[in-house]
Amino acid sequence: MTAAFNKAVLDEIEKTLAALLPDEGLDQPKGLRRVARAMRYSALAGGKRLRPCLTVHSADLFGVPRDRSLRAGAAVEFIHCYSLIHDDLPAMDDSDLRRGRPSSHKQFDEATAILAGDALLTDAFEVLADETTHPDGAVRTRMIAALAHAAGQKGMVGGQMMDILADKGEGGSLDIALLQSLKTGAMIRASCELGGYLGGASEDQMTALRDYASRLGLAFQITDDLLDLTSSEEEAGKPVGQDHGKLTFVDLLGEKPARAKAESLVEEAIDALSIFKADSRALQAIARFILSRSH
Amino acid sequence: MTAAFNKAVLDEIEKTLAALLPDEGLDQPKGLRRVARAMRYSALAGGKRLRPCLTVHSADLFGVPRDRSLRAGAAVEFIHCYSLIHDDLPAMDDSDLRRGRPSSHKQFDEATAILAGDALLTDAFEVLADETTHPDGAVRTRMIAALAHAAGQKGMVGGQMMDILADKGEGGSLDIALLQSLKTGAMIRASCELGGYLGGASEDQMTALRDYASRLGLAFQITDDLLDLTSSEEEAGKPVGQDHGKLTFVDLLGEKPARAKAESLVEEAIDALSIFKADSRALQAIARFILSRSH
Repeated sequence: MTAAFNKAVLDEIEKTLAALLPDEGLDQPKGLRRVARAMRYSALAGGKRLRPCLTVHSADLFGVPRDRSLRAGAAVEFIHCYSLIHDDLPAMDDSDLRRGRPSSHKQFDEATAILAGDALLTDAFEVLADETTHPDGAVRTRMIAALAHAAGQKGMVGGQMMDILADKGEGGSLDIALLQSLKTGAMIRASCELGGYLGGASEDQMTALRDYASRLGLAFQITDDLLDLTSSEEEAGKPVGQDHGKLTFVDLLGEKPARAKAESLVEEAIDALSIFKADSRALQAIARFILSRSH
Repeated sequence: MTAAFNKAVLDEIEKTLAALLPDEGLDQPKGLRRVARAMRYSALAGGKRLRPCLTVHSADLFGVPRDRSLRAGAAVEFIHCYSLIHDDLPAMDDSDLRRGRPSSHKQFDEATAILAGDALLTDAFEVLADETTHPDGAVRTRMIAALAHAAGQKGMVGGQMMDILADKGEGGSLDIALLQSLKTGAMIRASCELGGYLGGASEDQMTALRDYASRLGLAFQITDDLLDLTSSEEEAGKPVGQDHGKLTFVDLLGEKPARAKAESLVEEAIDALSIFKADSRALQAIARFILSRSH
């Protein structure tokens, strides 16, 4: 990981994920242990943790206690990990490699991968519903509604379906910005929104967080497309060049203009943070990292 | 459906499901429409609606307004429908038929079925999180936690994994009562618990609802095993006799003792309702229906 991400926060995120995931203990039936093992295999596989970092540092703007924002961030990461497990399935993107290791259905089997994904999605809401995440039930349900909306038919799931249809040439006239806004943007926006909800953000503050996150998400997707052109499979930890069949921002804009677009989006993201009097350097650093990342 | 289920309530449940499911309107990208269509295909396929009936009639004991209990019941049914879609997948039970029609992955394709299931699971929590389900956020999160627990690794998902391992002969020494308590019992218990939470049930009342639901769930599974012995595929609306490879209550107890066990469980379920002063005849009728059902 790069220095753009606060090492102490990353450590706390790993600890929180490990503590909230079901254990693999022998005191439960073999089936439950197998699901727990598959959940931990995918959720503790050393991802970038971009989304929980966004939740924690957005919440930091409002002085939210870290034990709360870490739980909310873990819920977001559970949903991100579930989506990777299901996306990798043979019927979806059919990817054998994830983060440099066999994907879940290769390490276990398809049934286990489907169920581990289902359980991670379900557990995310159980984590958010618990009163240790925030004492006010209304705040908890606001976070649950925002995350469910971002993950569901009008968010990530819908975006993934659009992507699959586009791959098959069945998508009709394709709005790639809309596709990416749903497939990856919605969850990145929700990551920041959760920090705002935990902190009791005003409408203006919420709008600023969403503006930051929307631009960050789009920049992230453009650099992803750029990386897919240039990086090795070893660096990426997953098969690369697989996106060449589908239309990317690089195809649409060309390589140099795509990079320029990512740069201006990152500047806009940072500008959106200017309304906060609190120290927003951590969120600024994450935005700048997007441009420098190699995987 | 039999007269055991209140026709007016069943109609309201269908209306609520139809209203809460995403629409298939042309004003959205093709991918989102496809997911919506698959969600509606499976969730509006004329199931028994046992679980939402349990939620509504449990809530009725406390005089909960129907618009609230119908929404909570719909959330439970969304999760039940998601589990059927995923269970039918080739990697799981590999079932081509469901409720007399092609299962979701046969009607659409595997990717669509996986995503439609994911979206139904996600939407269930969005429905519960909304303040129209109950004005008190703490009540809403109590329902969300109970439902997530029943559906997740320590509930339905864990039970399904146990079942798959048992099919492969990899389950180790199998506790079939535990397996069924997780795979189907947990969600039936949660269906009643949600009614109790909506109604502000006392601890004793909650215990009575759980006792009723646990016995009902076990009786339901035993009669399911009995039906699988005797019914035609046409009556069942799904392939029958497929469970013969796995250990059932009928194998364990024998056919006649299994029926006797189901009968005594139904009597115990009805007895558990005796602490309620309110009219519990609808819940009693559902318990008795379990014994008479033909599908």
